[in-house]
Amino acid sequence: MDKILAINSGSSSFKYKLFSLADESVLASGLGDRIGIDGSTFSMKLADGTKHEVEVDLPNQEVAVQTLLDWLKEYGVIADLKEIVGVGHRIVNGGELFPDSAIIDKDNIHKVFDLTNYAPLHNPAEGREIQAFMNILPDVPQVGVFDTSFHQSMDEVHYIYSLPYEYYEKYKARKYGAHGTSVRYVSGKAAELLGKDLKDLKLVVCHLGSGASVTAVKDGKCYDTSMGFSPLAGVTMGTRSGDVDPSVLQYIMKKEGITDFNEMIDILNHKSGLLGLSGISSDMRDIRNSDDKRARLAEAVFINRVVRYVGSYIAEMGGADAVVFTAGIGEHDDVVREGVMKSLSFMGVDFDDAANKAANEGFITKEDSKLAGLIIPTDEELMIERDVVRLAKLK
Amino acid sequence: MDKILAINSGSSSFKYKLFSLADESVLASGLGDRIGIDGSTFSMKLADGTKHEVEVDLPNQEVAVQTLLDWLKEYGVIADLKEIVGVGHRIVNGGELFPDSAIIDKDNIHKVFDLTNYAPLHNPAEGREIQAFMNILPDVPQVGVFDTSFHQSMDEVHYIYSLPYEYYEKYKARKYGAHGTSVRYVSGKAAELLGKDLKDLKLVVCHLGSGASVTAVKDGKCYDTSMGFSPLAGVTMGTRSGDVDPSVLQYIMKKEGITDFNEMIDILNHKSGLLGLSGISSDMRDIRNSDDKRARLAEAVFINRVVRYVGSYIAEMGGADAVVFTAGIGEHDDVVREGVMKSLSFMGVDFDDAANKAANEGFITKEDSKLAGLIIPTDEELMIERDVVRLAKLK
Repeated sequence: MDKILAINSGSSSFKYKLFSLADESVLASGLGDRIGIDGSTFSMKLADGTKHEVEVDLPNQEVAVQTLLDWLKEYGVIADLKEIVGVGHRIVNGGELFPDSAIIDKDNIHKVFDLTNYAPLHNPAEGREIQAFMNILPDVPQVGVFDTSFHQSMDEVHYIYSLPYEYYEKYKARKYGAHGTSVRYVSGKAAELLGKDLKDLKLVVCHLGSGASVTAVKDGKCYDTSMGFSPLAGVTMGTRSGDVDPSVLQYIMKKEGITDFNEMIDILNHKSGLLGLSGISSDMRDIRNSDDKRARLAEAVFINRVVRYVGSYIAEMGGADAVVFTAGIGEHDDVVREGVMKSLSFMGVDFDDAANKAANEGFITKEDSKLAGLIIPTDEELMIERDVVRLAKLK
Repeated sequence: MDKILAINSGSSSFKYKLFSLADESVLASGLGDRIGIDGSTFSMKLADGTKHEVEVDLPNQEVAVQTLLDWLKEYGVIADLKEIVGVGHRIVNGGELFPDSAIIDKDNIHKVFDLTNYAPLHNPAEGREIQAFMNILPDVPQVGVFDTSFHQSMDEVHYIYSLPYEYYEKYKARKYGAHGTSVRYVSGKAAELLGKDLKDLKLVVCHLGSGASVTAVKDGKCYDTSMGFSPLAGVTMGTRSGDVDPSVLQYIMKKEGITDFNEMIDILNHKSGLLGLSGISSDMRDIRNSDDKRARLAEAVFINRVVRYVGSYIAEMGGADAVVFTAGIGEHDDVVREGVMKSLSFMGVDFDDAANKAANEGFITKEDSKLAGLIIPTDEELMIERDVVRLAKLK
């Protein structure tokens, strides 16, 4: 039976799903965690529900790849490596070079590394992971699925910064966005649920997890998105600041005696957001469970920043058919969804309180609502699998 | 006849108007320009329309103050300095210390200088200007009218950044906004034109000049505003970038070999915005007159960034009664107004093309429009005059 492997790896993690080519069913899934860090673990969940997890030494992406292939054989998921007919890889940044997913081979893999400037922690790790697969499975097509590709349809008005224009000309300094694979999947599902052609819809997709973004989707394409040159910008996130006046950074650096801007960026990426505001946690579940005043502030700020972007994008597109929630917070946090949707009551939202509290999939507005609210669980790995099938012409 | 002097000075300029206390009529107005720079000029326009302008040496604010008082006597506007019964001064930043305009005397003027951190170029110049008046007119009340005061009504959710909270606790690093005096004046006028109590209105005020901001006004108070810790943030401006992902600055600094973040901030303040995008001019009139592709881009970006904020603020407030345009571009650029209002057609805007093209004051939407569009010429100096009268109890 032919199988497709989808790899969704971060700078120090390695998520995977093995799909049956025939019916998209998931045969195995799991995670290699803390790669290159002490105490790394590897886990695998099989189709029958059995889970295996052990502490193993995962010094790099290459060992994680080998461990995965060993386990697939050990647990009887595959009898022979030849059953794997395609491998797809999520890659954080494809710059302007990759407006779509693409076959990655020896002729173009250098491009993945060339884009390191745009995603210093991610692209090199992802490139090495692809090389590891090329070495072990030299005849199997490798497909790169870029988080930024979906957003390449933005026009210049939306992706350009109001900076000296030569920074774009010389260095391609612009907005790239992220979460594109998730937004693409969720948008297609939204069209199904709304019973309309995606080309006729205006959607606002709120991908709210530890990283969070809001995207305007018009005619099935990205019209605008809240993340910027990097995934730092936009709404408040778990540990990331989202939007901030550069002048306040200058002021803080002076007060704190920080002379290296990289140090400030590190604070914006790792010590800000829900964690910085609350002082308690970067996880919205912990924030929700706390009575602390600053936890309440963090929650309110999070909701407000999503409302700001949703309002912006509805105005930019000249209206919207639906607001869609996905990812950890989007799928599971009814308070956030309620806060966002109720702020849009003036636009004719007829909110369904009961559905919002009970559901983690489907409509959270009533049938006659002028603007629909939807929960759609994202599935980036399935999207990766489908891109492998499409580009390697496996079906 | 008692008179009130209103001073609206910047880091190197000195705008003034002399009002009659009795009827708010303007007896003289003018500008001291290029203070502390070669080629400074001083001008005065009298009530009868006569204009005087000469090149004079204006090495500092003190000399500008003395020049103004000399000219008022020389051109017969006042016979004696005692006719000036109050002086009002626009001050860029009042931090959290000044939630309203205030009498400035020897006991509290140090606060104006203490706030220098928040407006390094402006507050010291404005403080020295007040001191000059105190020396020459020791018995006349001086009133500080802060650009930030109106925005002090924002709640914490709107003014806090998603940064480590101690930066706010220790340094008051937060959003302050600007253009508050203009927005306060314009909001009051909007209520008059709409025939409603300001307390019952939701307004979005677009103050669009070489500096530009968008403010949400709810119940007569600032609810949110686009400028941030400093006047750098928010929409695209003449030479200022407005919002930008801090990560793209890190990337540009690396590429350009810039190691001092202050240098980058200087580029964001002086070489960005319409100037940076177009490469032609920071002035929207020049941009409009150019056929260049990048001029068209700059114009489209400017309109888009205003639309983003207008959409945000309508969603934050849960609707709006009117969008108000003021300041140079807001009052005189029908293309910008049309771009903003037409993007809101989906909210029931019934745009009045003819009025928009012909008018520079009043309604630009038809009577039955669900969301009104208004042009209201701002008058910060009149607002300053009224604050002097109110706080010095001159009437």
